Amino acid sequence: MLVPFHKLQSEFKRVLVSLDFTEEKAKILAATFAENSRDGVYTHGLNRFPTFIEYVKEGLVKKDAEPVKENAFGALEQWNGNLGPGILNARFCMDRAITLANENGIGCVAIKNTNHWMRAGTYGWQAAEAGMIGICFSNTIANLPPWGGLDPRLGNNPLVIAVPRAEGHVVLDMAISQYSVGKLNLYKSNQQKLPLPGGYDKDGNLSYDASEILESQRLLPVGFWKGSGLSLVLDLLATVLSQGNSTAKITASENESGVSQVFICIKSGIDDQYAYLVEEIITYAKSSRLVKDERSILYPGENSLLTRKKSMEDGVWVDKGVWEKVLNM
Amino acid sequence: MLVPFHKLQSEFKRVLVSLDFTEEKAKILAATFAENSRDGVYTHGLNRFPTFIEYVKEGLVKKDAEPVKENAFGALEQWNGNLGPGILNARFCMDRAITLANENGIGCVAIKNTNHWMRAGTYGWQAAEAGMIGICFSNTIANLPPWGGLDPRLGNNPLVIAVPRAEGHVVLDMAISQYSVGKLNLYKSNQQKLPLPGGYDKDGNLSYDASEILESQRLLPVGFWKGSGLSLVLDLLATVLSQGNSTAKITASENESGVSQVFICIKSGIDDQYAYLVEEIITYAKSSRLVKDERSILYPGENSLLTRKKSMEDGVWVDKGVWEKVLNM
Repeated sequence: MLVPFHKLQSEFKRVLVSLDFTEEKAKILAATFAENSRDGVYTHGLNRFPTFIEYVKEGLVKKDAEPVKENAFGALEQWNGNLGPGILNARFCMDRAITLANENGIGCVAIKNTNHWMRAGTYGWQAAEAGMIGICFSNTIANLPPWGGLDPRLGNNPLVIAVPRAEGHVVLDMAISQYSVGKLNLYKSNQQKLPLPGGYDKDGNLSYDASEILESQRLLPVGFWKGSGLSLVLDLLATVLSQGNSTAKITASENESGVSQVFICIKSGIDDQYAYLVEEIITYAKSSRLVKDERSILYPGENSLLTRKKSMEDGVWVDKGVWEKVLNM
Repeated sequence: MLVPFHKLQSEFKRVLVSLDFTEEKAKILAATFAENSRDGVYTHGLNRFPTFIEYVKEGLVKKDAEPVKENAFGALEQWNGNLGPGILNARFCMDRAITLANENGIGCVAIKNTNHWMRAGTYGWQAAEAGMIGICFSNTIANLPPWGGLDPRLGNNPLVIAVPRAEGHVVLDMAISQYSVGKLNLYKSNQQKLPLPGGYDKDGNLSYDASEILESQRLLPVGFWKGSGLSLVLDLLATVLSQGNSTAKITASENESGVSQVFICIKSGIDDQYAYLVEEIITYAKSSRLVKDERSILYPGENSLLTRKKSMEDGVWVDKGVWEKVLNM
């Protein structure tokens, strides 16, 4: 069913305030959850809200915690998230990185002991809105085997790269697994074949069958061995720069809590030349002939904008069951 | 055949000096080409040396050109490579990024009008040797279709992320195409099937056949649509930060010359805790059970170190024909 954006936002806020979140924090959290659904990232919008509330009630997410600076050297800072809400910590860190980049051309903020930031792209949009190139990534609980291995030992560590653009920011938001567990579960319950191989079956054959892949736990990283390496180095960077928990430690704790994240901003030097160069690249990519049955070539973030527009006009798509659950909270 | 490392290096240097490279420049170039072969990156070591010499003779690579600073803002700098040798420009830029990171915690150097840097990983090793986290990437001529498209419009834009480690640096060196054109040609001439799908045949089916893929020109980006997006944003970053040529412009010029590159260094905060965290992550990845017939799980860069050791003990593998060509230069 479809629900107006403002209704989604106000219901989230009502629930958060009832749990004693401050007005200001409730407002930011509610807006972010609502925006994630609005832009089509349903897994990290409404659908995830009840889990977030559970985590708050269980004390895994500490609603009053504030990030504290632990170390700083020039344009590089280390913060402790004190297990506060991941969205608030991440927004705070990207803001700090924007400030550092405004002062130094480039800035980097690493944070330890934070929580799931929901949609990774949120913070790319935030940087781009401030006219900054934004790069950020998080480690996660282990859910991918390393290349050559059978057991999950790597996170699907989402990576975001955002480039500001007046007609719509370019925001790459990619996790390292080819398909998320959520997406695999969706294909499984719809009994649909994956459009591309998403992992291995239990006999070690590349598979298009979501249930086989979920059973073997051998999800594919992007680019096979390359994504495996990329996941490992992102975990290294997040962990050593924040001096926080690695995927190994997070997994050992059995809860995806206390994760490590990095936020980098770079002044994009917006001027006439800048906008021209961005358009040159997008136009060139779009100039390719299309594969049969494909309707267009999209730049990263373009689809989010299209969904956003539709959501604002027609209402935001919500899962009826989850929406009613939130209404009754 | 096998050739001692020092012999490879001295022959390269002899040729370069005969072409009027300064002693110092010839030394760095010769060492880098020799190291690339030594570490097993044959495509960008000896095998590429004759092409480099051709480019110098044709004036596409200007042997006496020096990089010139065009803009600076704090820890962010823009340089013009003036079409000098890509290896020298890239080494210079990574050195500048190291200096900027030493002063500011993080530093970023973008360069336009430079040339092919040969093995991308070279500059990751350089940063790691200086105790820095290093990130760098380059745009290239178009050789990949964007997702949904048929025609090459994206570069395979190599991306490097390096993390210093006393027992052997972690250096991820990945291009965006799943297999390079060089690798596809190798499989084609050996009439071998690719171990994993590497692109599409002309009917749009995923293919393990290198000659079919070379014919369709539809090489796969890592992670399908995700690598397509990653390639585009790396081109955006390299182009707008350096104000240089995009993949579109490079491709229009028909020579892979005058490319744009970015070098970022971050202080890694080496201390006891640092080394411990790095080992924790690598040990955890290696603790997975192995896929049948796999011998080990390697971290990015580990294989280079193993090849390096073997090359130094037994000699560096060279293609006899190319080696004789260089000896006769």
